[in-house]
Amino acid sequence: MRGAGRTQAARVVTYARGAARGRLCEVARPDGTGRGFWGRARSRLSPADSMRRGERSHGGAPSKAALEEQPGGGGGEAPAALEAPPGPRGDLSAPAPAPALRRSTESEVYDDGTNTFFWRAHTLTVLFILTCALGYVTLLEETPQDTAYNTKRGIVASILVFLCFGVTQAKDGPFSRPHPAYWRFWLCVSVVYELFLIFILFQTVHDGRQFMKYIDPNLGVALPERDYGGNCLIYDPGNETDPFHNVWDKLDGFVPAHFLGWYLKTLMIRDWWMCMIISVMFEFLEYSLEHQLPNFSECWWDHWIMDVILCNGFGIYCGMKTLGWLSLKTYKWQGLWNIPTYKGKIKRIAFQFTPYSWVKFEWKPASSLRRWLAVCGIIFVFLLAELNTFYLKFVLWMPPEHYLVLLRLVFFVNVGGVGMREIYDFMDDPKFHKKLGQQAWLVATITVTEFLIVVKYDPYTLTLSLPFYITQCWILGILLVLTWTIWRFFIRDITLRYKEIRRQKQEHKYEKDKCVSNGDGHSPVPDEQNGNKLRERKFLIPATD
Amino acid sequence: MRGAGRTQAARVVTYARGAARGRLCEVARPDGTGRGFWGRARSRLSPADSMRRGERSHGGAPSKAALEEQPGGGGGEAPAALEAPPGPRGDLSAPAPAPALRRSTESEVYDDGTNTFFWRAHTLTVLFILTCALGYVTLLEETPQDTAYNTKRGIVASILVFLCFGVTQAKDGPFSRPHPAYWRFWLCVSVVYELFLIFILFQTVHDGRQFMKYIDPNLGVALPERDYGGNCLIYDPGNETDPFHNVWDKLDGFVPAHFLGWYLKTLMIRDWWMCMIISVMFEFLEYSLEHQLPNFSECWWDHWIMDVILCNGFGIYCGMKTLGWLSLKTYKWQGLWNIPTYKGKIKRIAFQFTPYSWVKFEWKPASSLRRWLAVCGIIFVFLLAELNTFYLKFVLWMPPEHYLVLLRLVFFVNVGGVGMREIYDFMDDPKFHKKLGQQAWLVATITVTEFLIVVKYDPYTLTLSLPFYITQCWILGILLVLTWTIWRFFIRDITLRYKEIRRQKQEHKYEKDKCVSNGDGHSPVPDEQNGNKLRERKFLIPATD
Repeated sequence: MRGAGRTQAARVVTYARGAARGRLCEVARPDGTGRGFWGRARSRLSPADSMRRGERSHGGAPSKAALEEQPGGGGGEAPAALEAPPGPRGDLSAPAPAPALRRSTESEVYDDGTNTFFWRAHTLTVLFILTCALGYVTLLEETPQDTAYNTKRGIVASILVFLCFGVTQAKDGPFSRPHPAYWRFWLCVSVVYELFLIFILFQTVHDGRQFMKYIDPNLGVALPERDYGGNCLIYDPGNETDPFHNVWDKLDGFVPAHFLGWYLKTLMIRDWWMCMIISVMFEFLEYSLEHQLPNFSECWWDHWIMDVILCNGFGIYCGMKTLGWLSLKTYKWQGLWNIPTYKGKIKRIAFQFTPYSWVKFEWKPASSLRRWLAVCGIIFVFLLAELNTFYLKFVLWMPPEHYLVLLRLVFFVNVGGVGMREIYDFMDDPKFHKKLGQQAWLVATITVTEFLIVVKYDPYTLTLSLPFYITQCWILGILLVLTWTIWRFFIRDITLRYKEIRRQKQEHKYEKDKCVSNGDGHSPVPDEQNGNKLRERKFLIPATD
Repeated sequence: MRGAGRTQAARVVTYARGAARGRLCEVARPDGTGRGFWGRARSRLSPADSMRRGERSHGGAPSKAALEEQPGGGGGEAPAALEAPPGPRGDLSAPAPAPALRRSTESEVYDDGTNTFFWRAHTLTVLFILTCALGYVTLLEETPQDTAYNTKRGIVASILVFLCFGVTQAKDGPFSRPHPAYWRFWLCVSVVYELFLIFILFQTVHDGRQFMKYIDPNLGVALPERDYGGNCLIYDPGNETDPFHNVWDKLDGFVPAHFLGWYLKTLMIRDWWMCMIISVMFEFLEYSLEHQLPNFSECWWDHWIMDVILCNGFGIYCGMKTLGWLSLKTYKWQGLWNIPTYKGKIKRIAFQFTPYSWVKFEWKPASSLRRWLAVCGIIFVFLLAELNTFYLKFVLWMPPEHYLVLLRLVFFVNVGGVGMREIYDFMDDPKFHKKLGQQAWLVATITVTEFLIVVKYDPYTLTLSLPFYITQCWILGILLVLTWTIWRFFIRDITLRYKEIRRQKQEHKYEKDKCVSNGDGHSPVPDEQNGNKLRERKFLIPATD
């Protein structure tokens, strides 16, 4: 550790130097664009340069990278291991707190390193139990003669064995609480779900819908859509017994669902602005697509007051409060047996269900074109996944209250959180990360596959053309976003560069004048502060290019 | 790197001390059992002690462990990262050669760290291509109306998507040449194969056999067994045109198959003795089981001369020669573009198909009970997998020359090599390894599942009782092995401990005498060498306990 610590120290220095440089640039530039410029300066590296960066960082798995990277020559890149998510493994190997260099957005963790049995993968135990179970079921129990039943049973058994394998052996993701096996389980579930979707995708529409009967015999029947619109009077004077009956009518199970959903989504996205944008954009999408799916048609007050402000808004608010608590909480992990009191033990068990450590997400979409596109992509995929919920129900004839619909949401909450963190890790790094995380990869594939199923199963509904005024709104919106993108990342950049060059020229001229006047033996001594600024600038300009 | 290097240096010292201690023990003990004893001394650690060891090592993933382990307090345990297989990642992050501490059985590697693009996982590229392919196939091509065909297509598509995911994202194993994706591919194939086996296992015998028709319509038909026994005369005087016709008869495609098979098996097992034992034991098994499977019945000279000595023996010999070359070869990896000559480039490409580095396997079965049981287990599973080849063909009605039989062998050669290395890594470590490797786990599960299928599909053949004299032979063999085990790991141990205690007592007595005589002012000065030995022993005994 001590050795590694020294390496880090060296790197911290390099880092600090880099950061200081950036900050000095900010100081030197009166228009206050230091940060943005610094961000872009990085993205403007020459291809060869970024190639070299890529080489050094992409290739390095945490283990070797941490050991083999040169602190001096590395050019201020933190070793991958330091950025690596705090797995369950780290907990155990370090009896002392790890004074490792962390990202500024990551919380400090103290771990006393106990809890061994709980953390182990038990590969041999699982192998043994699996063998016994298989032997018992297939050799001692009699095989039924029903082929269809056996086929079903064979498929279920295959899935269970796959889960056994995956939960024991799959690659760990960024999360480790309550137990890494929990996240490996969801990873395997997403593989199974994705394969199921692919299978459905390759069937004919009729077969696909009827296939659902194998899962639940009640499925595979066309369903009437419930229309949420209709009477939109908040106060209905026509109904004398209960004039607010329209409002009560909308207060169904979807209200807590909306609230809970947005609470969890906030925990996933960890950013107030992105949550609000997605929440509002989804209502716009509902408006735009209500001619395709009737249950998107809601009253205006249902859209904006009940959904956006009350349910989603309150969910996001609670989510942000929780985020605040999670990012301020001290992450101090002690082994259960090292805690003397019963109350402490119970508290420790409860805290097992909170994260091992916390990473604050700072998406910073405006800092570079890459991040901007990534954030747009995330919002797009997020909205697509939300729409899929409704369209998939619609094309596969699933009643909205079916347990599979709920399971899918539970699934998405679990894998979405991991996926979002992996995307953040992929984006937020001084170096480019080696790979997009496995769970993020799968979530993207699943969303795409679901969308393909929707397109394949009901191309008619999906291509119902948008009403003219809605098309106009969307075109306007897209144009605005495009304009902003071009202005922010291209035009503004050129303007800044032009200003920079002009300033340099002026300085050069001034310098010359100064030299000439010095040569004359007269020291003009301009105002002291200005001189300092100039020296700073002279020193800094090569560094910013 | 420099920092990490220092950590390693510290650890090398601790290690060297440990090893020296072991060696001194050997010197100190006149019966020459030093090494074995050292091995057992380790396994005799108190439970609490090994628990603590387990804690520190099990939990540690390469990355964190390498950074967080204390060089002083670690008690001479090498960091996991150093023992970690040389992945493709390390190659890239280190422009300078890595002077990492390696196991004595592992070769030194120099790597200049180029070849970036080739090594990257290309997660986003694969995601994009997969999406396009799925979109094209399902949306632009028309879906056939044939349900059975679509089902098949859906399953194949699911498998392909799974392979896509796995090859891009699965956990890397110990091997990295020619490319880690190659080994990830075989890992995924083993998952698919295992799931297929589980499915087959849950069908009725009739359905299972008929199911093979979906893979190849020619399957699912009962087959006549070819009898290899018959006329065993090497020189047949009855046949005047060709008296050696019996010999030529046996020289079929199985001769090169045997040779190649054993060549590859030797590369897997990397131990002359284990190979010979498995080879001979398999012939014994053929003798014992020829009443169950007629194609096990061969002539005595076919068994011992052609199989064991010629085919297997020569295969093992060539394998050992190759092993020798691989362990002496210098592992010096240079990027393709850094090599100036064409010849050099071509050589580099060819060497891409040799291992990245080499680990010599030293199974040392007699060194501890754990290793002995593990080696017995490996031999048992190996023989079981060999028998499965024949029994599985038999119960699933597969003709021996069918391509699926060959594919299964190709599959086993690939995954067996990884599995064996993972088992070796699991066993051979100063600390216990965290997990049994994923591929080893799968190979074990596959072998067990294949065996269960055999038992389920033809319990009648499998329970045909062995002839009496064969049963006797096996009971005798098992008794011998058991006796040896008990003698080697229990009785001999007690004897040694008893001797040790007696020696300690004697020394103690001698010491007292010496003190007394010193007190008298008379120094007896016994023969110098003996005295040195004693001092050594005194110093060492606490260390071995």
